[in-house]
Amino acid sequence: MTDATHRRLIITGTGIAGLSAAIYAGRSNNDPLVIEGTEPGGQLTLTTDVANYPGFPEGISGPELVNRMKEQATRFGADIEHGVVTEIDDTDRPFRVECKDGTVYTADAVIVASGASARTLGVPGEDELMGYGVSTCATCDGAFFRGEEMLVVGGGDAAMEEASFLTKFASKVYLIHRRESFRAEQYWVDRVQEKVDDGEIEILRNTELTEIHGSQSDGVSHVTLAHNESGYPSEQLDEPETETTEHDVGAVFLAIGHTPNTEYLDGTGVKTDEDGYIITHGGRGSGQTSTDVEGLFGAGDVVDFHYQQAATAGGMGVKAALDADDYLDQLDRTQQAEVAAAESDD
Amino acid sequence: MTDATHRRLIITGTGIAGLSAAIYAGRSNNDPLVIEGTEPGGQLTLTTDVANYPGFPEGISGPELVNRMKEQATRFGADIEHGVVTEIDDTDRPFRVECKDGTVYTADAVIVASGASARTLGVPGEDELMGYGVSTCATCDGAFFRGEEMLVVGGGDAAMEEASFLTKFASKVYLIHRRESFRAEQYWVDRVQEKVDDGEIEILRNTELTEIHGSQSDGVSHVTLAHNESGYPSEQLDEPETETTEHDVGAVFLAIGHTPNTEYLDGTGVKTDEDGYIITHGGRGSGQTSTDVEGLFGAGDVVDFHYQQAATAGGMGVKAALDADDYLDQLDRTQQAEVAAAESDD
Repeated sequence: MTDATHRRLIITGTGIAGLSAAIYAGRSNNDPLVIEGTEPGGQLTLTTDVANYPGFPEGISGPELVNRMKEQATRFGADIEHGVVTEIDDTDRPFRVECKDGTVYTADAVIVASGASARTLGVPGEDELMGYGVSTCATCDGAFFRGEEMLVVGGGDAAMEEASFLTKFASKVYLIHRRESFRAEQYWVDRVQEKVDDGEIEILRNTELTEIHGSQSDGVSHVTLAHNESGYPSEQLDEPETETTEHDVGAVFLAIGHTPNTEYLDGTGVKTDEDGYIITHGGRGSGQTSTDVEGLFGAGDVVDFHYQQAATAGGMGVKAALDADDYLDQLDRTQQAEVAAAESDD
Repeated sequence: MTDATHRRLIITGTGIAGLSAAIYAGRSNNDPLVIEGTEPGGQLTLTTDVANYPGFPEGISGPELVNRMKEQATRFGADIEHGVVTEIDDTDRPFRVECKDGTVYTADAVIVASGASARTLGVPGEDELMGYGVSTCATCDGAFFRGEEMLVVGGGDAAMEEASFLTKFASKVYLIHRRESFRAEQYWVDRVQEKVDDGEIEILRNTELTEIHGSQSDGVSHVTLAHNESGYPSEQLDEPETETTEHDVGAVFLAIGHTPNTEYLDGTGVKTDEDGYIITHGGRGSGQTSTDVEGLFGAGDVVDFHYQQAATAGGMGVKAALDADDYLDQLDRTQQAEVAAAESDD
């Protein structure tokens, strides 16, 4: 504890939310340290072309937008460091922030902007083609494949929503799900069924994606699918009932869920919902990004399970920096008053 | 009514919120019409250098950022038109949207992004130097005048907050107020008083700004102030008790309030707070920008009286476009079901 470096403000995560917070916090002289985490740059680095971040009419690549924000934050005095936060202790102030490599910091305030990681399948071709026809965000990338056939993987609300959304652009959407029945709400199932009736979506049940084929230069060419009437075909590839087929598609959208990165907050008083997303106070006026832990604020996809856009994450990051500034200012005054009281006691 | 042009989505205002909404709405094939209002480009056009909009490490001028977003929205199919909306009728669907020049539109959904206008004094020099040393946003512009003396005009919470914030940068902050007592909360008054005790802020009561001197090339050089112990000196300039003096300052910040632009919503079911800001549903998940009028959404400074930053307005604009897309999609399905039902009746 004695070796810990003290910082006025620590921000976890260098995605759009964390960097937007860092820009404002730097500019407000709050000397932020931003700790990068396991996915530097966050979800946006998975997107080759960001067409819808307001301010870039020609579009911009995800990594470039992230780099520009890093540069902007650094100019205003933010420090960005490699590292993975493994624990935050909120029992006393300052906070104690511990990293995987053993580094320990203390901090007067913390902004949690560690995002949510899209789940992936782990099949051949997936990593190589991520951002080149494989995507975890239909809203971000759907429009790039106008007129092509598209494949959506998943059986929850997100998969239904993405499949439904993609019919705006796709010549046809294939929705594959490893089981017979969907986990999604009936509302979403009905909505997809309407599009099935219209011929816009085709559902392949008890089907799994086992390989994605293509190249970074030409994108996705086709996929290998496995089908078994009893479900979970990838676990039964050697069974005679399991059929393997090839399908030409231009894009693959994975909608098998996100996991908010909040493990390091276990043991703190931060409240999360049943899926692990942080619950902030919200409402109107100041303090919208406050959590149940005073001095700890939340922003970006670690809070927002719904919109999850670069612009919405950035907006929340800015709010968190302004809320943290209010808090730190109040803290300074309290401490000054205590010092003054102690001096007058002498 | 018969001559009205029908649009799927109308957005009022071409500030950051309206344009961000238009980018997303265009991309979602919702064919938005954006009606510009009396202050095209919104509040940001008053700021010469926007240093804190995430993504522009070198900064960008307010008007340029707005123009880039206009171009981006237009590319995705948004139409932007001159015009001032004077009335929205929400009694039936589609909405009826009437403009000052008599043009009438109907719309399936409306995003209200008409902003809040900063109040100004109307004194000589103010208009010419707006953006060149005169500002209505300390958070935006304070850092540009590092080390200089700054003048803040106002007596409410915003004035106290801005004066307090500006001590980070100013060699000294002068806070002038036309009356003896402040309208601000005691919290803010105390906070400013602490900085007065520290010598960082000097308060000039019963004092008004009557002229701002300088040039667009060199910025603000000095101001003319009028003082009268009985208050409201500008109304008593001819009285012998009114003193007029010149003060050298490097920047002038007007913090005399904003007025949300919502007059045209009178008569609708949109709920506003006592200052006229629109109350949206907020909360978590979908529909955060919904108002009490179904199909009418709110975004930007017309909702947010607190943060009022470009990035926060943009984030809300994006949310509103996504919420409107959900609504319009639902509307399509309802209408299709009605058509199907009518046909089966035949």
